[in-house]
Amino acid sequence: MTGPGYLAVDSGGSGLRVVVGAGGRGPLARAASGEPVRTGARGIDPDDLLEQLLPMARALCAEAGVGRLDTAVVGAAGMASLGGALRAELPASLIRELGVRRVALAADAVTAYVGALGPRPGAVIAAGTGLIAIGTDLTRWRRADGWGHLLGDCGGGAWIGRAGMEAALRAHDGREGGSARLLASAEDMFGPAAGLPGRLYPRADRPAVLASFAPRVGECAAGGDPVAVAVLRAAARHMADSAAAVCPAEGEPAVGVTGGLFRMGADLTGLVDEELSKRLPRARRITAEGDPLHGAVRIAEDLIIGSFTLPGDAALLSLTAPEGDDAARAADALT
Amino acid sequence: MTGPGYLAVDSGGSGLRVVVGAGGRGPLARAASGEPVRTGARGIDPDDLLEQLLPMARALCAEAGVGRLDTAVVGAAGMASLGGALRAELPASLIRELGVRRVALAADAVTAYVGALGPRPGAVIAAGTGLIAIGTDLTRWRRADGWGHLLGDCGGGAWIGRAGMEAALRAHDGREGGSARLLASAEDMFGPAAGLPGRLYPRADRPAVLASFAPRVGECAAGGDPVAVAVLRAAARHMADSAAAVCPAEGEPAVGVTGGLFRMGADLTGLVDEELSKRLPRARRITAEGDPLHGAVRIAEDLIIGSFTLPGDAALLSLTAPEGDDAARAADALT
Repeated sequence: MTGPGYLAVDSGGSGLRVVVGAGGRGPLARAASGEPVRTGARGIDPDDLLEQLLPMARALCAEAGVGRLDTAVVGAAGMASLGGALRAELPASLIRELGVRRVALAADAVTAYVGALGPRPGAVIAAGTGLIAIGTDLTRWRRADGWGHLLGDCGGGAWIGRAGMEAALRAHDGREGGSARLLASAEDMFGPAAGLPGRLYPRADRPAVLASFAPRVGECAAGGDPVAVAVLRAAARHMADSAAAVCPAEGEPAVGVTGGLFRMGADLTGLVDEELSKRLPRARRITAEGDPLHGAVRIAEDLIIGSFTLPGDAALLSLTAPEGDDAARAADALT
Repeated sequence: MTGPGYLAVDSGGSGLRVVVGAGGRGPLARAASGEPVRTGARGIDPDDLLEQLLPMARALCAEAGVGRLDTAVVGAAGMASLGGALRAELPASLIRELGVRRVALAADAVTAYVGALGPRPGAVIAAGTGLIAIGTDLTRWRRADGWGHLLGDCGGGAWIGRAGMEAALRAHDGREGGSARLLASAEDMFGPAAGLPGRLYPRADRPAVLASFAPRVGECAAGGDPVAVAVLRAAARHMADSAAAVCPAEGEPAVGVTGGLFRMGADLTGLVDEELSKRLPRARRITAEGDPLHGAVRIAEDLIIGSFTLPGDAALLSLTAPEGDDAARAADALT
């Protein structure tokens, strides 16, 4: 028997990724837009998101043979700080245009959490260009860092790349703490050191440029460069700091890592494991189950079967559902 | 007896500062433009600089009763990396428009050095929003750092302010290494922490915004906040690293500090003294004689009396003078 249909969405820096599935049968069809949703004066633009999403959702329903969508879950990067217009307009639009009964809007940190750990208490470190830690004891959410490349994101891709470039230029200047290996790698990637400022500062995507050097720091560390190893260890400590700040104090919480930064290699992952075991000895280190899109799917499926147990949060996770609906229990849990 | 007249210029972030003086009598008249020279696709714009400078120079000559200018010295921020068009055009323009015989173009790091220490061997740390160290053994110049707020400028105003804001947000998140006092100070200055990214990242003058928090870090340190003290000590260590990289290895070099950052207070200066005495025990710590404009004046006076002994450098210090001129000795020293 097939349960009600659902739509699960992950909106991030590389565009929309969309799944249509059915309760009990899991994902049935997938698509990706490749175009990031526009952010304007009102934050994430709900019209632009809808313009991309509606045709994708209808095509996927046809492809999957799903006649009616019951539930939509949209996870989006920037939801917490730039999601005001989305929260104000998207649920009604999706109910009107797609006939869904329930809409959940989630910050990408929440979908990353659920994708990695599922609906159990713990903490997740989500690291790509930036870094944020999110945790829950199933009564409320806590966040740490995620402040961007100048104010924090300590231990993330831009942080590691920046620290590596600084060490490269220390070697160039003859200052202490430099690494000739990182300097050679930076000049191989970006050209002569003297031209580095001119190639970095005029760009709008400075954090991405810095993060693009993080894998080189990983390579130098894997090759035994002590300065590069120290950069990775400092990053791992920062990650453990953030995880410890959001991890539930009681019980035996699960701790996981997720995000593109961990594709960098075994050295970083090993150092993070070491630092986590020092800082959170009572936590169980869990390998992430899936990515943020998987988290959105998981939330949709749990809403449909009425087993949704995650806490709501004005900025991080909000549900729109009809009163007296099957989802009442979930809706109660969310507000 | 009055020697030949000279023009000395300091071009920086707050505009042009200009002195007209005469050999043996020192500065006779001063003015400031208050408008920074434009930087365009060709780097520092020589036409914009001339348009500001020529009327100021003529008015100051009239005020000072200097009939003829013999020598012009222009020190400019950005000369090393963005001074190509200045070096190509400014000397001929000043010779043609003002009738000078000699033109010296200097990076602001060089005028800062000469302003602080005069023409003797040593090292100078110049710190404002950014940070650069410059040193000479009187045969060549060496520089360290000055790479900008993402790649270095370690220990400068933006660096200290950024580290202070990071510590404030650590306290906000409940991460290790935070300071509730820095958090209170940051929220007093910029408003609630949650709004900080939105107030910083969209601005073009991010380094200046970060640096504007450095005096608050100084205040918290003066009040005994251990995290703020640690930020200042780390800054002082970075400064000592940079000074050590450029300081002559032989003799008993002079070491000085200069720039707006040191108006922050006695704590920073004291920590820098401590770190310098550890890293450069053979150097004599000298109180800066004057600022970069004083350095430009000093270079002009030394050129006029033929006692100029500083080494030339394609990017840092270049002289244009007629062959066989009194300044031949200086010109030889410069190339």
